Amino acid sequence: MAAAGMSLRRSSVIISALFRNASRQNSTISHQLVVTQYGDPIKSVSMAEEPLPSLNSNEVKVRMLASTVNPADINTIQGSYAVKPNIPFVGGNEGVGEVIEVGSDVTQLKVGDKVLPAINAWGTWRTYAVCPQNHVFKINPNLSPVEAATMSVNPCTAYRMLKDFVSLKSGDVVIQNGANSAVGQSVIQMCKAWGLKSVNIVRNRPNIEELKKELQELGAHVVLTEEELRTTEVFKSKQLSRPLLGLNCVGGKNALEVTRQLGNKGTMVTYGGMSREPLMVPVSALIFKDQRFVGYWMTRWNKENQGSENWENMYDNIATMIIEKKLAPPKHKLVPFTQFKEAIENALSPKGFIGYKYILDMQK
Amino acid sequence: MAAAGMSLRRSSVIISALFRNASRQNSTISHQLVVTQYGDPIKSVSMAEEPLPSLNSNEVKVRMLASTVNPADINTIQGSYAVKPNIPFVGGNEGVGEVIEVGSDVTQLKVGDKVLPAINAWGTWRTYAVCPQNHVFKINPNLSPVEAATMSVNPCTAYRMLKDFVSLKSGDVVIQNGANSAVGQSVIQMCKAWGLKSVNIVRNRPNIEELKKELQELGAHVVLTEEELRTTEVFKSKQLSRPLLGLNCVGGKNALEVTRQLGNKGTMVTYGGMSREPLMVPVSALIFKDQRFVGYWMTRWNKENQGSENWENMYDNIATMIIEKKLAPPKHKLVPFTQFKEAIENALSPKGFIGYKYILDMQK
Repeated sequence: MAAAGMSLRRSSVIISALFRNASRQNSTISHQLVVTQYGDPIKSVSMAEEPLPSLNSNEVKVRMLASTVNPADINTIQGSYAVKPNIPFVGGNEGVGEVIEVGSDVTQLKVGDKVLPAINAWGTWRTYAVCPQNHVFKINPNLSPVEAATMSVNPCTAYRMLKDFVSLKSGDVVIQNGANSAVGQSVIQMCKAWGLKSVNIVRNRPNIEELKKELQELGAHVVLTEEELRTTEVFKSKQLSRPLLGLNCVGGKNALEVTRQLGNKGTMVTYGGMSREPLMVPVSALIFKDQRFVGYWMTRWNKENQGSENWENMYDNIATMIIEKKLAPPKHKLVPFTQFKEAIENALSPKGFIGYKYILDMQK
Repeated sequence: MAAAGMSLRRSSVIISALFRNASRQNSTISHQLVVTQYGDPIKSVSMAEEPLPSLNSNEVKVRMLASTVNPADINTIQGSYAVKPNIPFVGGNEGVGEVIEVGSDVTQLKVGDKVLPAINAWGTWRTYAVCPQNHVFKINPNLSPVEAATMSVNPCTAYRMLKDFVSLKSGDVVIQNGANSAVGQSVIQMCKAWGLKSVNIVRNRPNIEELKKELQELGAHVVLTEEELRTTEVFKSKQLSRPLLGLNCVGGKNALEVTRQLGNKGTMVTYGGMSREPLMVPVSALIFKDQRFVGYWMTRWNKENQGSENWENMYDNIATMIIEKKLAPPKHKLVPFTQFKEAIENALSPKGFIGYKYILDMQK
């Protein structure tokens, strides 16, 4: 969540725009997707124009380059997410911008810097923004707009889940479901880069062999359908040791099957619930196998760690992996900002079969 | 589990007894409940006589005073428990004895010491035993046989669950289901002794008011039936803060209701599964409330900690609580050893409504 002060500030900016109060405005007009009510995303989101205010001494002006449309953004608009910004608000949590003007007291940033939001619910779905300098942070300038726009949610989630719950050493096994999700693709690539073996569970589908090949090309050690997981011998035969870490974004029976393959003292980290079913945990897994079941939420981690050494290291490491071609952005579709409806309609498919992330090209 | 060497040693002693090989025997005969096959406890357990061997220099002879019949003992005989001693074996995990003879090299124990088994599956259902000195350990001599015989499983389980998962301070709230179980009764009393508030969930029953009164007399802060838990206002109204620790021996829907009352970053420790249903964990509890779900198994803790400072402190503290009348043995029925069938038949009621623990009086 944004700090309360920020929410109020942003709301008041939007409201002022709605009333065409242009006392601080200059010539720049920001086009932005404003959520005016909680509900059906298509009906609740509309494009609005906001004359940008002139800068206070501590503020920067940012031109947005690319923004993602993530399932959590859609849930936020629906009012079903754990984060509920005050209405009206500008949508979007993730995106990259370029600093184009700085206030007289700004020391942390300069014109030309590429920046990401440093706070949750910053509102990335706009062409321009004015904000205090510490509400954004500078990233590696060698990242492309798509690379930068997609790095702060999914790769960071994968990174933290692989780092923070189990002490893994080279050769250890990680199992995950929803392996073709954007997080799943990051997990596969980070496992490969760090010498871990990933066992990747996906749903069966007509083009399953093609999908398996894609994930293997990313570095997946093993890819199995849910059905194949039930009868797999890779663990029983000792071809692979039992996973010490499981990553779950599905829940329900799928997660139960993953749990059954998890090793003694293994940890299952849940970061999503695509099946909309609870996690079912066999009592014997808890008592006799000493497995533990925890959750991960990037928003909370950011809130508790933003600006810390851990946080800086994470962004440095991820940027380096991207630049060294060890970590690619997820499969995506880049669409002009004006075509936002297509992105919003498709970002949260009930079947989850879309297979690519929508990224808005903010200057088109 | 007992060390492999111990299992073999005990098996060979029993087998030698069955063949009436009395080369090392002296005049003491041990009567013991031998499990000759896994299966129906009534059919699988029979009373046998074993002429005791004379002592090796490092061994002690123990006269058993009292032994419990716990559900885990019955599951072990059924072959459905996670511990599977080699057949044949003497049943019983928990009980107190008195040292009546010591070998020439024994330094840790003397005649008259009261002792508990220091290893799992030691076989307490016998009138006499000979074993290495480090397979038993001395306890506070002021404990009565019933107090001593019932201290190592249930009070220790309660103690560790309250100490090892969440750092609780005076005034914090603990919620548990199966609150009238033997572990539950220990939890209630320890919470009271340590300034914690216990919220205790029990199943509705004809004598519910009587049961509530009993648990309140033990120190329960609140006692609720499952139905009352669903609609309780004690947390919503802020009369009590949300529990940081939940203890679960039931599973299924009951545990789900307990989870719903748990606070942010709360921990649910499962140590039993009376409903025979898995734990159902809402994905939102994991992700947004950052709750974690873990298990506890006394057998594993003992294996990993036996003889440690933590372990010694625990026995000292529990003995002190018992002697200071802060911790009473569970409601129990003391029956002569010869009436073991009654105890075995009733220790694992499918309804779990027995309401007291069977303790065998080993010298009757």
